[in-house]
Order: sequence, then C-alpha cells, then structure tokens
Amino acid sequence: MNAEAERANPTACVVVIGNEILSGRTQDTNVKFLAQRLAEKGIALREVRIIPDERDFIIATINEVRARYTYVFTTGGIGPTHDDITSECVAAAFGVPWEPHPEAWALLERHYPPGEFNPARQRMATMPRGAKLIENPISLAPGFSIGNVHVLAGVPRVMQAMFERLAATLPGGAPIVSVAVHARNLPEGRIAAPLAEIQNRYPGVSLGSYPYYRADNNGVAIVAKGTDQASAEQAIQEVMRVMRELGAEPVLGEPPV
Amino acid sequence: MNAEAERANPTACVVVIGNEILSGRTQDTNVKFLAQRLAEKGIALREVRIIPDERDFIIATINEVRARYTYVFTTGGIGPTHDDITSECVAAAFGVPWEPHPEAWALLERHYPPGEFNPARQRMATMPRGAKLIENPISLAPGFSIGNVHVLAGVPRVMQAMFERLAATLPGGAPIVSVAVHARNLPEGRIAAPLAEIQNRYPGVSLGSYPYYRADNNGVAIVAKGTDQASAEQAIQEVMRVMRELGAEPVLGEPPV
Repeated sequence: MNAEAERANPTACVVVIGNEILSGRTQDTNVKFLAQRLAEKGIALREVRIIPDERDFIIATINEVRARYTYVFTTGGIGPTHDDITSECVAAAFGVPWEPHPEAWALLERHYPPGEFNPARQRMATMPRGAKLIENPISLAPGFSIGNVHVLAGVPRVMQAMFERLAATLPGGAPIVSVAVHARNLPEGRIAAPLAEIQNRYPGVSLGSYPYYRADNNGVAIVAKGTDQASAEQAIQEVMRVMRELGAEPVLGEPPV
Repeated sequence: MNAEAERANPTACVVVIGNEILSGRTQDTNVKFLAQRLAEKGIALREVRIIPDERDFIIATINEVRARYTYVFTTGGIGPTHDDITSECVAAAFGVPWEPHPEAWALLERHYPPGEFNPARQRMATMPRGAKLIENPISLAPGFSIGNVHVLAGVPRVMQAMFERLAATLPGGAPIVSVAVHARNLPEGRIAAPLAEIQNRYPGVSLGSYPYYRADNNGVAIVAKGTDQASAEQAIQEVMRVMRELGAEPVLGEPPV
C-alpha cells in the first residue's frame, strides 16, 4: 500500500551541468539539498546526471530525462560568461527560439547603472520562448521553467533560494519519511539475514543498511524509508529486537558524525 | 593541439549506486575524489550517474555507459545485505553467471571464524564469472573488474583504497592540469566579454568562470584546464591582465574557503 503510494508519487531527475564537478574542483552539495527537499514534498528523486558544459551533451541529456521523469531540475550554467550555455541548450532541446525575455530583461536593465547592462549580462535575460521566471532573491538574475524542466543556478545559496520560490508551485505526493537506528560493533554480515527477512515482511518500506567507520567504533545504521511513518517505525522496532538478539545495543537515529 | 591531446585521452563514467544519496541521507564525496584522481591520470571523467539500488535500473545503466566510455567505475552496493545488488546486476549486464569466485571465497573463508562465513558474507565472494579482484586493504571484501567496468565499494575510505590498488593498472593519458586565479569584488558580468575573447585564442585550454560569495567579499575565480601546463598558465596570465585593467587585483590560486 505504501509502496503503491510511493510509486504513485511524481518523479524527478537532477541534471548537474558543471565541468567544475567533473574535474573535482568543486564538491557538489546541491544534490543532497534537492534530494532532501524533494523527499519532503513527496517527489521521488530517481536519478542524477552530472554532465559537462557541452552543447550537444546538454541537449541530448535534457531531452532524454524530460521524457522519462515528471520533473527535471538543472543546476549550473546560467551566468553571463561563455561557459554558461544551459539556457540556450534548453531552448534547443525544446525546439523554441532563445530570445530576450521581456520580464527578465526589464528586471536586469532596471538594476544595472546605465551602460552596464552589457551583452554578457543580457545573456542572463535571454531565455527559451515561453519560459516562466523563477525569482532569485539573492543575486537577481532569475532561473526559469519551461515544460517540466526547471533551470536553477549552480551557486548553492542561489539555487536553494530559487528552489524554495519554485517548490510551492510543484504538485508533490506522499512525503517520504525515514526512521534510522544504529548499533556499535555490529558487522553488517551478522544482521544481513534477519534484515532481509524483515524487508520481506514490510514490502512498503525500503530498508537500507549502511556500515560506518569511526575512530572509536565501527557499526551499522539501518534506515527505513517509506510514505507511512507507522510502518517505517514498526520495521525499525523489529530491527532493534534483532540487534538486541545479536548482543548489540540499538540507538534510535543516525550514528554521530 | 592540447584539445586534441585531451580528446585523445581515455574517458570515464562514474555510476554511484545508492538510495542513500538519492534520498539526501548521505553527502557523496566519492565523485570528487575520483574526478581528481582520474584527471591526474589523464582520464577524462565525462559523466556521473547516481541511480537507485534497483536491478533493472542498474543493468540498463551499466550497459549504456560501458558501451560509451573507456572506463566505468561503480561505487556502492557490494556489501552483504539484501540491498547490495551491484555485483549480481553487473553479471546480468554482461550476460555471465554470478557464481562463487574461488580466490575471493578462499580469502573470506580464511578470515572468518568457523561458522561465521555465512550466506550473507558468501554474497561478497560471489561475482560475475571472469571477474578480476580489486584488493581491499581496509575491510577485506574485494571489489572487482570485468571488461571495462570496475566495481568499487561505497564507503569512501574503502573506495579510495581500492581505487589506488586499481589505478596503477589503468592506462591513462595526458594528465589534465589546472591553473586558477581569483579576484575580489569583480562581477562575472564585467569580465565575461574579454574572457570569451581569451577562450577563443586558447582553444586547447578550457576556461571556467566561477563566482563566489564569502562573508567578507564576493568575487570570481577563473580556472584554466588542459593537458598543456604552459598554455594554461599563459591563458591565466592574460586573465590577470584583464582583471587589472578592470581595476581588480588578481591573486593566483583558488579563493580561500
């Protein structure tokens, strides 16, 4: 029943457009933020693609994933410089002109001193025809939505602010909740069999097993996820019983960092 | 010439198999590590896919990307629990039996006290036929390679140790170097036009522009990447000249965190 509720949820793909992630220059943190916020909204993040700042690659990826998922969120590549090509690629993916967006143009033109709304900055007001703006309360230049594709900034603070403006407008589903328990000095290999047995009896809950390694102890965290809090909690109660039977001491929540 | 050298480099895709990343539970750090190490080896990381622990999804993704890239590296899903299905999915992707690997089996059987090499742990010694082991000096259970697919652990410390064991055996290419410069209080929109002009004159160098936001100042970092250190340095010298012309003070290196 749960599993059905979760399967009925809208789906999402995040496309991170960024040579700086693929080169190892930058540690991405946008995926974790979006993953958590989408789960809260009952939108299932099914896949992430991290791709280079290359026209053909971006167009092909956008067209592949927008056909497959309810929502696509892109991050990165919407600034004023030559490597910011997300917007024109999204226009090409949708087969629509990339042209001055009247509202965005007026917004940026008003902002800059005379003569400083230069061609580079005008690129940030050039969008696929029909794009709907996503407000940027941090640094002004807006993101946009077209069809089911939502184009966000790459800078985390700006991306987050844009997402929050957008989030209220996106129909979601049953929120995905999770309940965690952990135990010190319990190898995964000892709990694996009873854990699989509990998983079989709770088909609406997804049970994940994550070993952890700390300076003072190693152990395992078990996380139950699903759309029904009560079932997730029941499954975790059963995991706790098994942990005790194995001589370990279960502690609710994630292990300390 | 540079760009040709870089285009001649082997390519790679990283496939992160992990519900815990897609749910936002865990901040991935494996991509950044692999991206940096692959660049050092002259292997171009072209794409990352983050996908759920689901059989059909894993098989389809592996088969798609192994046909497209020189190397595929997977992280995650090779432990003993029910949600660790990477190994059997790789076997299915290659159309070979998933069976006890004699060497891995002997290794783990020797390690555990009598009676503790249970069916869950035996899964960690079950691999696609023909798999070549990747040593795990941290927690013993090995990764493996089959064809161009290299199957690594998800726990960062274990993944890194496995990668270092593997790295020496992977033919690479011309190492990708990068040179960075940054300047405080320089909006991207002011440097965009001269930057594009420099990019045009250095087709073998990839110039990236990354705004940053700090408590005490905002600014921009420009990163030149390529296989020829001298060209990257020359391009950055030109960027520094432009920064000075715009009244900003260029500082070599990335901005302080």
